[in-house]
Amino acid sequence: MPGYKAPVEDVTFLLNDVFQIDRYANLPGFSDATADVREAIFSEAAKFSEEVLTPLNRVGDLEGCQRHDDGRVTTPKGFAEAFGQFAEGGWIGLSAPAEFGGQGLPYTLTALINEFLISANMAFAMYPGLTQGAASALIAHGSQALKTTYLPKMVAGEWSGTMNLTEPHCGTDLGLLRTRAVRQADGSYRITGTKIFISGGEQDLTANIIHLVLARIEGAPAGVRGISLFVVPKVMVNADGSLGARNGVACGSIEHKMGIHGNSTCVMNYDNAVGWLVGEEHKGLAAMFTMMNEARLGVGIQGLALSEVAYQNAVSYTRDRLQGRALTGAKAPDKAADPIIVHPDVRRTLMTIRAFNEAGRALVAWTALRSDVAHRSDDAAEREAADDHTGLVTPVIKGVFTDVGFANTVMAQQMYGGHGYIAEWGMEQFVRDARIAMIYEGANGIQALDLVGRKLPMNGGRAVKTFFAEVAGYLAENNDAAMKPYVVPLAAALGHLQQATVWFAKNGVANPDNAGAGATDYMHMFGLVVLGYMWARIANAARARLANGGEPARFNAKLVTGRFFMERMLPETAAHLARIQAGAGSVMELPVEAF
Amino acid sequence: MPGYKAPVEDVTFLLNDVFQIDRYANLPGFSDATADVREAIFSEAAKFSEEVLTPLNRVGDLEGCQRHDDGRVTTPKGFAEAFGQFAEGGWIGLSAPAEFGGQGLPYTLTALINEFLISANMAFAMYPGLTQGAASALIAHGSQALKTTYLPKMVAGEWSGTMNLTEPHCGTDLGLLRTRAVRQADGSYRITGTKIFISGGEQDLTANIIHLVLARIEGAPAGVRGISLFVVPKVMVNADGSLGARNGVACGSIEHKMGIHGNSTCVMNYDNAVGWLVGEEHKGLAAMFTMMNEARLGVGIQGLALSEVAYQNAVSYTRDRLQGRALTGAKAPDKAADPIIVHPDVRRTLMTIRAFNEAGRALVAWTALRSDVAHRSDDAAEREAADDHTGLVTPVIKGVFTDVGFANTVMAQQMYGGHGYIAEWGMEQFVRDARIAMIYEGANGIQALDLVGRKLPMNGGRAVKTFFAEVAGYLAENNDAAMKPYVVPLAAALGHLQQATVWFAKNGVANPDNAGAGATDYMHMFGLVVLGYMWARIANAARARLANGGEPARFNAKLVTGRFFMERMLPETAAHLARIQAGAGSVMELPVEAF
Repeated sequence: MPGYKAPVEDVTFLLNDVFQIDRYANLPGFSDATADVREAIFSEAAKFSEEVLTPLNRVGDLEGCQRHDDGRVTTPKGFAEAFGQFAEGGWIGLSAPAEFGGQGLPYTLTALINEFLISANMAFAMYPGLTQGAASALIAHGSQALKTTYLPKMVAGEWSGTMNLTEPHCGTDLGLLRTRAVRQADGSYRITGTKIFISGGEQDLTANIIHLVLARIEGAPAGVRGISLFVVPKVMVNADGSLGARNGVACGSIEHKMGIHGNSTCVMNYDNAVGWLVGEEHKGLAAMFTMMNEARLGVGIQGLALSEVAYQNAVSYTRDRLQGRALTGAKAPDKAADPIIVHPDVRRTLMTIRAFNEAGRALVAWTALRSDVAHRSDDAAEREAADDHTGLVTPVIKGVFTDVGFANTVMAQQMYGGHGYIAEWGMEQFVRDARIAMIYEGANGIQALDLVGRKLPMNGGRAVKTFFAEVAGYLAENNDAAMKPYVVPLAAALGHLQQATVWFAKNGVANPDNAGAGATDYMHMFGLVVLGYMWARIANAARARLANGGEPARFNAKLVTGRFFMERMLPETAAHLARIQAGAGSVMELPVEAF
Repeated sequence: MPGYKAPVEDVTFLLNDVFQIDRYANLPGFSDATADVREAIFSEAAKFSEEVLTPLNRVGDLEGCQRHDDGRVTTPKGFAEAFGQFAEGGWIGLSAPAEFGGQGLPYTLTALINEFLISANMAFAMYPGLTQGAASALIAHGSQALKTTYLPKMVAGEWSGTMNLTEPHCGTDLGLLRTRAVRQADGSYRITGTKIFISGGEQDLTANIIHLVLARIEGAPAGVRGISLFVVPKVMVNADGSLGARNGVACGSIEHKMGIHGNSTCVMNYDNAVGWLVGEEHKGLAAMFTMMNEARLGVGIQGLALSEVAYQNAVSYTRDRLQGRALTGAKAPDKAADPIIVHPDVRRTLMTIRAFNEAGRALVAWTALRSDVAHRSDDAAEREAADDHTGLVTPVIKGVFTDVGFANTVMAQQMYGGHGYIAEWGMEQFVRDARIAMIYEGANGIQALDLVGRKLPMNGGRAVKTFFAEVAGYLAENNDAAMKPYVVPLAAALGHLQQATVWFAKNGVANPDNAGAGATDYMHMFGLVVLGYMWARIANAARARLANGGEPARFNAKLVTGRFFMERMLPETAAHLARIQAGAGSVMELPVEAF
């Protein structure tokens, strides 16, 4: 059975050394998150992940969720107890406002802890994760009455939350959605329609489930401008807050999926269900979109989290498995063979995953900090800059982390040879679980289009120009001899990214297919550059720690891993640029009938 | 449920136009394989694949194989009947010598047909595939008595064959194997030990199962020089050919795997089982190795086959699924949305898979033809050259086709959005099934090492020098204006590959880790160059057909797809070269304790 150890030391290094979180002490909630408090929180979250959630991961995969004839859904054995314990610990509301029972601590802490939870048990972590997302939507857009009725219970984990967007005939193109809402005299609405792929749509973890549902009010304009957002509770809530009758919503079936079996993915049937409007009529998509960055960052973290846990297990297997001899002579001559970690191709694989994980975690920390600034700063210019940054980087994190995270689980599985294909070893579950993250919350092709088609041109390219200036400035300020192995390759990669950006500006307007055909390459190129930038900052911080008596082994490992990234991963930007500059020609030339 | 249509037209084009199979008419068996015969064979194989095997693919995944308490294993419903039909049709012995009941037709036909069978049902196709492999081993190394006893029944599909190499503690490093063989007075041996991951080790398809087993004769030298190969039948065969008592071999359990559920993967326990030596004592590994090229080519074909069937289904879904509008304006204004095949990122994905599949199929055809030359030519120099070629290209086909084939199933699955993650749509099965091919028959890291460490330096680099000369010669002879879009990029890529080869020669001897750290990149780079070479030849043949009144749509599609390969896939060679030239430094620098 796979093991897991949460990277507490690494997140501490990132917050203290690389990003110097104390500089953010003026933001609400940050002064409460002192170094001691942070350490205590990370340690507790690590313990819960390692000791409670990890052992339930395979059970969840094997047992899956069961729908009963009466529409009830049971989650795998142990999930309900673990969820209770998790809610009890106050984890769901760690970063939620105090007025709803939360602790108001930085979102950054929640984001970093989510990595631990997901590494330990992705299917489980989705239940509280979606509850946090639904609560955020209500906080941002709900009326005071809705907030008072629902948020304290959701923040406490007594009730859960879900997001209901997809319908059988529409996923990406929400303009096509058909679920109807009919206004009632009392100000409520009656919702009717079918939603699919609803994670946690029905379960036995909480007494109530608060569904956020996109629907079209009768008479609304066609397309995305006629969509509204509603709260639809599974069980009606009485005026005194107690639970009343069942609402007209039920789970029609659960899906048979490739992975995340421990999470119930439901078809939800809404039959004249009572709902209340969240935000304004016909502005549901905009309300959803404000939540999108956080939700997409959360899915990106899933890619990172599975990459990390798969890496840890691959390391442990390759240190134990004896097979063959090192190319440079036996390293364990007293044994029948050397551990396979001596082989360069094995080492290359491990380093490739590790070099992504450590920079990826840094990017999560940095982006979460910027998200805290965007939401909590009292300086409008600071908020705008931070919002620009998260808007720009979020599709990159979602698309790149889930593509690379999945590929990394596959590489880690490969280290096990034939055993990697066998369920009992647990590696193939990581692959199956990781696969969904490339698809949901906007398939990765959509992330790439969001980046190239929306985020690049937005406000005259303000966000991307600021980002380029920041990286270029960092390169200029940190080009002493010791930093050369990092800043020289990064400068070349940044140059490629800038060339691609200019190319799109020139060629994407005349023929938008030129932008579409290069979008995925651009997203991955952007990912390499921003991860390279993280490596430069990590290397700098590691050098500072070494200069101040930091453990040589630990911080030298950072310097070596950063060099590996620069030498072996960053050169890919040239291939991305070549593909982008090839344009849409051969991509679009064949008529549809030729396929 | 996914569909499948075998690419009969494409294999015909490859044999007739690209490789002009008639030039091989002097080889035994080739004159029987006239154009009409080939067409009839391909059509029948297509029909069997499409109509019998395709419908059993999902059944096989859902039902899997069951081991009963008495050690019997039942395969999924319908498999036994289909196997009977397949054997009856004479397919197993299509290319086997007539003296054992085969039809003696070119192995090339078997290789191309295997793609169809695997696309339709990989788990099923493994049973006859392994039987063909075991039969080939007996043909090459068995005594006349063994051949007479076993081959006619195996060729007829009355009995099946298996390969038994792996043990719990050894896979790649067969020198560690422990299964013992004890000489008996009658010339037989008694075999005792445990083998794992034995595909088709037990089943209900055939009356007998002929196991080929690697074991160590008592007193044999340690390591790989003390391994011998044995035939161990499940049921003893009487002198008159009838079946006798059960032999001392049984299935101890079957594995729970990520995919290929329809194939029984067994732990096989040998307990004083009677076996007969194949070839010479202590030379079992060499005997196995002579079979390796064909077996590895067969696994490479699995990668191609799953890529092809996944592609076909992705095309069909993206032509049907309506979602969003084309970036250049509505293409189906009468419908609620355009089919998603209008989107450049979707098109890019489909073209990427297609550009691999068509060149990959060409490389299978070409290599199978060379393999026929290596086995059937009466000219020793021709045989040597052909053998050099297959030895060089086989690890590339195995490693690259299975890596890329798997990645392609993942990309095809992505085209389905959320539906791709749902079992009923069938796409996730292709991903799970394709995954094993990267692992078995020598994990892909081993293929890369075989290429770089053995095949490159062998005979002073004779094989690779010949290959480079062939491609360079082709480029020089085919550089008119119309061929420029193919030969110019290919020349650049060939240059990269040659630089990497020289780099290994210079830096790999001083420090073998430099070769090991770059081996996988080299293998993939080699794959790109040889597939690029296939595209140049395909483009040339397509131009010839166009000049001679060939259907414009069909052959123009070849020219466009080839350009796509050159513009968007081949540029990756530069990144591979950069990684290779980075050497082993940062790959190997961390001490094992740092992981």
